[in-house]
Amino acid sequence: MSAPTVLLHAGEAAPHWQALFAARRPSWRVVTEGQRAPDQPIDYLVGSRPPAGQLARLPRLRAVFALGAGVDALLAREDLPPSLPVVRLLDAGMADQMVEYALFGVLLWQRRLLDYALQQGRREWRQQPPRLRAEVRVGVLGLGAIGAAVAIALARLGYRVSGWSRSARHLPGIRCVDGIAALDPLLADSDVLINLLPSTPQTRGLLDRARLARLPRGALLVNAARGDQLDAEALCALLDDGVLGGALLDVFATEPLPADSPLWSHSRVVVTPHVAALTLPGPAVEQIVANIERDRSGQPMLGVVDRARAY
Amino acid sequence: MSAPTVLLHAGEAAPHWQALFAARRPSWRVVTEGQRAPDQPIDYLVGSRPPAGQLARLPRLRAVFALGAGVDALLAREDLPPSLPVVRLLDAGMADQMVEYALFGVLLWQRRLLDYALQQGRREWRQQPPRLRAEVRVGVLGLGAIGAAVAIALARLGYRVSGWSRSARHLPGIRCVDGIAALDPLLADSDVLINLLPSTPQTRGLLDRARLARLPRGALLVNAARGDQLDAEALCALLDDGVLGGALLDVFATEPLPADSPLWSHSRVVVTPHVAALTLPGPAVEQIVANIERDRSGQPMLGVVDRARAY
Repeated sequence: MSAPTVLLHAGEAAPHWQALFAARRPSWRVVTEGQRAPDQPIDYLVGSRPPAGQLARLPRLRAVFALGAGVDALLAREDLPPSLPVVRLLDAGMADQMVEYALFGVLLWQRRLLDYALQQGRREWRQQPPRLRAEVRVGVLGLGAIGAAVAIALARLGYRVSGWSRSARHLPGIRCVDGIAALDPLLADSDVLINLLPSTPQTRGLLDRARLARLPRGALLVNAARGDQLDAEALCALLDDGVLGGALLDVFATEPLPADSPLWSHSRVVVTPHVAALTLPGPAVEQIVANIERDRSGQPMLGVVDRARAY
Repeated sequence: MSAPTVLLHAGEAAPHWQALFAARRPSWRVVTEGQRAPDQPIDYLVGSRPPAGQLARLPRLRAVFALGAGVDALLAREDLPPSLPVVRLLDAGMADQMVEYALFGVLLWQRRLLDYALQQGRREWRQQPPRLRAEVRVGVLGLGAIGAAVAIALARLGYRVSGWSRSARHLPGIRCVDGIAALDPLLADSDVLINLLPSTPQTRGLLDRARLARLPRGALLVNAARGDQLDAEALCALLDDGVLGGALLDVFATEPLPADSPLWSHSRVVVTPHVAALTLPGPAVEQIVANIERDRSGQPMLGVVDRARAY
């Protein structure tokens, strides 16, 4: 079988990605848009945002590999052939990063560091009572590769972790619940709520005003999934009313977050620019190479998106 | 042997502490200053700040128990009898809290959260490259009960941890060095420096301008030991010059931190009001009761301060 041709959309980082592919599979042709010969047949496409229309113009294409865990942008495209496999990254170094980000949010709440930051702004020296890990109730929404890693890591550190997912999961040390009826009780039991759900028709708008208001008074929300799952206006209102205590937000309905968004200047909102779990080229190339070889030897690829559930 | 009499200095929390003693040893007399009968003999004193002169006026006193890990304030007192055992708390729930506080500092640096906070203030959306745990060099100063717990916990999480102590230590997964000659090389190899040393004549002023300047460019300092060990003015100058990247400070030369301190408003300094590791009454009473019983049965108490080394 001849070596495959891979079309790579990785922006300025393309040379680095090509070097990683070349180090592993020197015989493969991994080309960028500019390097591609006219009408050169493409077997695999790597990249979450190929140019509009391109996916429909590659007749030999066997799969498209997203450069992240989320595939909502790819699935929304009109040029996506209905039966083309869409493959997402599973962990690939993102889970460790997400554990760190989630833990930062948990510590913000547990150790009252948002409160102390506000005190610092007022030059106010006031000690507040300690909270012990075993008393901190953490709720994790989404128990896929990344959500499960976050839940397990926090439970190992001694936090009281519950997890919510669409279908039933069993994870060591985690109270796992599933289905929409179980969501409200989980929210009511989460001092820190960590959203790691995929963006699907079912999860868009999930964290609306009514659901956010079910969190315990003073709770903190971590959103590291997708901005379209959260009503940011309702969040700000609940923070202003003192119903919620804080938010650590990495994702937004519009990215980059517009300069006129009130989230930038809210004293109880920490904004990060979609960096909670960055794609690491090394592990990502490793996973894509393994999947291409599985496909070429007739084995099923890992991480192929189920179009019906959208992740 | 008759039940001991304990004089308790615990401020407003005294009733809670008394209840904890009573639940464990109902026959013991645990009294506050106001409850003490005139000339009632006192066997043990519990509290870090008894009234001036009191320590010299309790002839039957067998030991004074500090309500924390640090005993610098007690050792500095003129009324402290030279041979009276001064006992400090060993861990007693403080190590877990210190692990959390140190980890918060490590995450601030690793995940560039101080930089992102400054970007948020400017409404600037800019992603910076990830740093992986195995690349983050953490230096821990002080490897007593608390410092060792912090070093080991961070190493278990995957950080590259070095530890420095006065006398040689051996800890699993930690590169341990000791003695003053080993300090400068350790500083040069610490992206995050965590100070957990006791305050002694040898450590006061240790973190002066020259030593702070040895840290790698952009490093972050966590001080959760004592304020007198750090030259805060030099720290601010190094932060202003961009030599250092940030500081997480829980302790200060004067506490409460005076309202006119420039630390309150420095954009790269996070101030917390001496809360990194609060004394937990439950474990503290447990440890003090056990020590009193050891003393009364002729066994050596644990945590007795060596006056020569001052901890």
